[in-house]
Amino acid sequence: MERYIRVFDTTLRDGEQSPGATLTSAEKLEIARVLARMRVDVIEAGFPAASQDDLQAVRRIALEVGNPAAGGDELGRTVPIICGLARASKNDIDAAWEAVRGAAHPRIHTFLATSPIHMRYKLRMDPEEVVERVKEMVGYARSLCEDIEFSPEDAGRSDPEFLYLVLGEAIKAGATTLNIPDTVGYTMPEEFEKLIAGIIANTDGIQNTIVSVHCHNDLGLATANTLAGIRAGARQVEVTVNGIGERAGNTSLEEVVMALHTRRAAYNLETGIETTQIARVSRMVSNYTGIPVQPNKAIVGANAFAHEAGIHQDGMLKNQMTYEIMRPETVGVSRSNLVLGKHSGRHALRTRLEELGYVLAQEQLDRVFERFKELADKKKTITDADLEALMEDQVYQLEEVFHLDGLQVACGTMGMPTATVRLQDPEGKLHIQASIGTGPVDATFKAIDTIVGAPNVLLEFNVHAVTEGIDAMGEVTVRLQATNGSSSLRTSPQSDQNRARTFGGYGADTDIIVASAKAYLAALNKLLVSTGRINPAGELTYVAPATSR
Amino acid sequence: MERYIRVFDTTLRDGEQSPGATLTSAEKLEIARVLARMRVDVIEAGFPAASQDDLQAVRRIALEVGNPAAGGDELGRTVPIICGLARASKNDIDAAWEAVRGAAHPRIHTFLATSPIHMRYKLRMDPEEVVERVKEMVGYARSLCEDIEFSPEDAGRSDPEFLYLVLGEAIKAGATTLNIPDTVGYTMPEEFEKLIAGIIANTDGIQNTIVSVHCHNDLGLATANTLAGIRAGARQVEVTVNGIGERAGNTSLEEVVMALHTRRAAYNLETGIETTQIARVSRMVSNYTGIPVQPNKAIVGANAFAHEAGIHQDGMLKNQMTYEIMRPETVGVSRSNLVLGKHSGRHALRTRLEELGYVLAQEQLDRVFERFKELADKKKTITDADLEALMEDQVYQLEEVFHLDGLQVACGTMGMPTATVRLQDPEGKLHIQASIGTGPVDATFKAIDTIVGAPNVLLEFNVHAVTEGIDAMGEVTVRLQATNGSSSLRTSPQSDQNRARTFGGYGADTDIIVASAKAYLAALNKLLVSTGRINPAGELTYVAPATSR
Repeated sequence: MERYIRVFDTTLRDGEQSPGATLTSAEKLEIARVLARMRVDVIEAGFPAASQDDLQAVRRIALEVGNPAAGGDELGRTVPIICGLARASKNDIDAAWEAVRGAAHPRIHTFLATSPIHMRYKLRMDPEEVVERVKEMVGYARSLCEDIEFSPEDAGRSDPEFLYLVLGEAIKAGATTLNIPDTVGYTMPEEFEKLIAGIIANTDGIQNTIVSVHCHNDLGLATANTLAGIRAGARQVEVTVNGIGERAGNTSLEEVVMALHTRRAAYNLETGIETTQIARVSRMVSNYTGIPVQPNKAIVGANAFAHEAGIHQDGMLKNQMTYEIMRPETVGVSRSNLVLGKHSGRHALRTRLEELGYVLAQEQLDRVFERFKELADKKKTITDADLEALMEDQVYQLEEVFHLDGLQVACGTMGMPTATVRLQDPEGKLHIQASIGTGPVDATFKAIDTIVGAPNVLLEFNVHAVTEGIDAMGEVTVRLQATNGSSSLRTSPQSDQNRARTFGGYGADTDIIVASAKAYLAALNKLLVSTGRINPAGELTYVAPATSR
Repeated sequence: MERYIRVFDTTLRDGEQSPGATLTSAEKLEIARVLARMRVDVIEAGFPAASQDDLQAVRRIALEVGNPAAGGDELGRTVPIICGLARASKNDIDAAWEAVRGAAHPRIHTFLATSPIHMRYKLRMDPEEVVERVKEMVGYARSLCEDIEFSPEDAGRSDPEFLYLVLGEAIKAGATTLNIPDTVGYTMPEEFEKLIAGIIANTDGIQNTIVSVHCHNDLGLATANTLAGIRAGARQVEVTVNGIGERAGNTSLEEVVMALHTRRAAYNLETGIETTQIARVSRMVSNYTGIPVQPNKAIVGANAFAHEAGIHQDGMLKNQMTYEIMRPETVGVSRSNLVLGKHSGRHALRTRLEELGYVLAQEQLDRVFERFKELADKKKTITDADLEALMEDQVYQLEEVFHLDGLQVACGTMGMPTATVRLQDPEGKLHIQASIGTGPVDATFKAIDTIVGAPNVLLEFNVHAVTEGIDAMGEVTVRLQATNGSSSLRTSPQSDQNRARTFGGYGADTDIIVASAKAYLAALNKLLVSTGRINPAGELTYVAPATSR
């Protein structure tokens, strides 16, 4: 049997459906670039029918990452397949095709539920109607695109005999990859192995297709189920970076890849992944989505390797042999950071950024260098983590609507936390507002709210600093939701329902109150753009409620 | 075969070995109380030979949680077994027995490595010597205590035939539970199932003992391996809350318990766990250890349930049936919080705290009520999460050495963050210090450092607030390490080496800079007590470097 396992990354589609993970187009493109550099085989770039924004984001990835000409293939290898998700409807399939057709290797992925509970309560369709719809829609998709993936949703709770029938019809209609999802994370590994083995043994025509598995982690078994699927003959795995996704998330890319890599002798299988990129991609996804990685997360958690982050142990060598089954270097965790400082020049900065994978135009470099110098004035040594924080902060700045021009805060135990904020609006006008609050962050956000006037509720607020000293950059992520109704809704591919969209923001600064203001503004800016309250040129389509309450 | 699966919780032993998870005795006791309330069968309360402090903490748990008389058994059920870990040496076993003997049901857990790599490089012993040591030490432990658990360390990489021999000898010498650890998280579920089945089939006398499994999550497979062990016949599972532990951590209690609970029909097995306590225990362990839980963590992550935390979806009922395999209420995640406010009295507060599981003496209630009123002045509504933050902050305050008497901070984009701190030392004297820093937290910590004079390096800093509005309590956790050498070392049971101890601190306040100061002081206070620089009465045994630099 074939030894190669295809890695289908759905961080930008299923991962982005996590509450609050909403990404801007620029962020999606950056993530797609690093996924391609890590050599994933397929990038599921989004659900184009969700909104015009989603379609355009997928289109841009198809053009810029899915083509060798556009720099996606500097090493002469093939570029990844770019895939778009579509429900089993003509509209969705048209949108998906429109989005991916610009890629060198486009794929349309369509799905329909096959479990009794989903057919009855969600689809309100008979099994016969489901079969008819699959034939029709897979056939339609195949008339547009050579590479078609079909998923029977909630396969884990479907009748196996019915699955064989539906999958056989999908193959006849032109599907080239059959993906079996355990949509609700319900199956046990031995059950899932049996399910996949049964499908391979009993589905007509399946030997000429690729069988894929897509697992969820509701009971903590996504990785085990994925490996069980592979044992039964699956040759594509659908995964996300850091295992993000709805509820408890999807299968973690890093866990499956490193299990196969570490236990090569047991499985005798391989992926195309450049494992040394794993740590960097993990950090980028965490920062852009605002979804933190717990320290005890396998492979990419801060504690995953015994001797990480400032903890110096005697007898490291002995310890490595007795307690480590993989080396941190293998997944790109480096023990020593090359350090820049106050006297480092523009050239040193550019070189280091390029080593970290950031390629900048001259104008961008100038902006980053300016901020680098500001930071170097405050902080003795600038580490790779600082540079990454700076770059990520920069990506947000590029899509700025309101800009933080100044902030002044007083707080403490005397009990009257006060913040004065000065913002520049899209037309260049300055607005100043002072507010008190329950704390400095509350006071700052209230002042910003008064100027921006976009009603919202803050769902989550996190500050994080891993540091070799107190003076590190603080990284703040916030997550908020618009409270003014329908304008921020977004269609979910599974439930067909419009769900209130949440917006994440990221900010980095040595002053965590400044970082908080930046993160909050970043999220608000996303909200304003996404709800159409700012047109693409940055012009306000509403009147801000001035500077006084 | 027996249907009952014993839950052996090692959060306080293997979990506490996580970098930075160092807990105070008071915290350990609180956690042991909630573990008992959740009805775990065995609490591994620590490694008594590590230090006198560790021994005393286990002793206190044995006396107060391991005995019905001391209030551990208000519902008339049996109290948990209290277990202490010991290397295979007389000294360790004596320390463990001294620590657990006060419990109604004491257990000694001893271990010795059996893998070739561990025997050669760590133990420097022949296989024959290992067998002899096991016979001798299990026998010695059994002469003290009826209930003896033995673990062949790194069993996952040991020769099965050698394992059968060692385990058979351990049983003859008196071991009643045989625990099989996959110490480095290396095995695949199918391999682990085979290993356990082989042990049960081939070890003399094993039918009269309980077989236990202890897995690590380095490849994301701890839960799957634990379930594989159960399928092969294991009837005890060793787990930690939130899956904390060294490196990528241990098997998660909540994942194994809820997999068996959700898939009762498939496994036909049961545990004694009161699942409705899971969410609360998870929060307490996260707050006390300072180890956050990622939102996409199975069962206990903030996003684990589809419709959590302020995200309102249409058609919830339909969605529950189609996308949810368990109800949030089952693990104690409640949809609506009973809310208290400014006008709530002492009685209402006590009632709500008791519902949340906190039983307070009158004097403690008075202190908490005072802080509750302060909070209610700042914040309109007080939720359960606020009350829990308040209570956890309170637990830290009880062990205070230096006390935060006042804090005043100015910061913002003007670039001269300044903090003025007033601390009360253990003798009641006030110290005031102003400092500038790279940000308000840096300035505050520098001012505190100047007064306290305990050299340390800050390893990690996190702020978290899940909130229905901006004005929530901010919860800050910090982790630091003393930089003055040997006085803060602590013996690791596995490596026999002294490892630099790290200290975690927690603080909660509506002002995150105030919360940061409290968290930092809490960690510093732990460091001072643990390194013997403050004696138990709170008296300084060194001269603080006064108030100026």
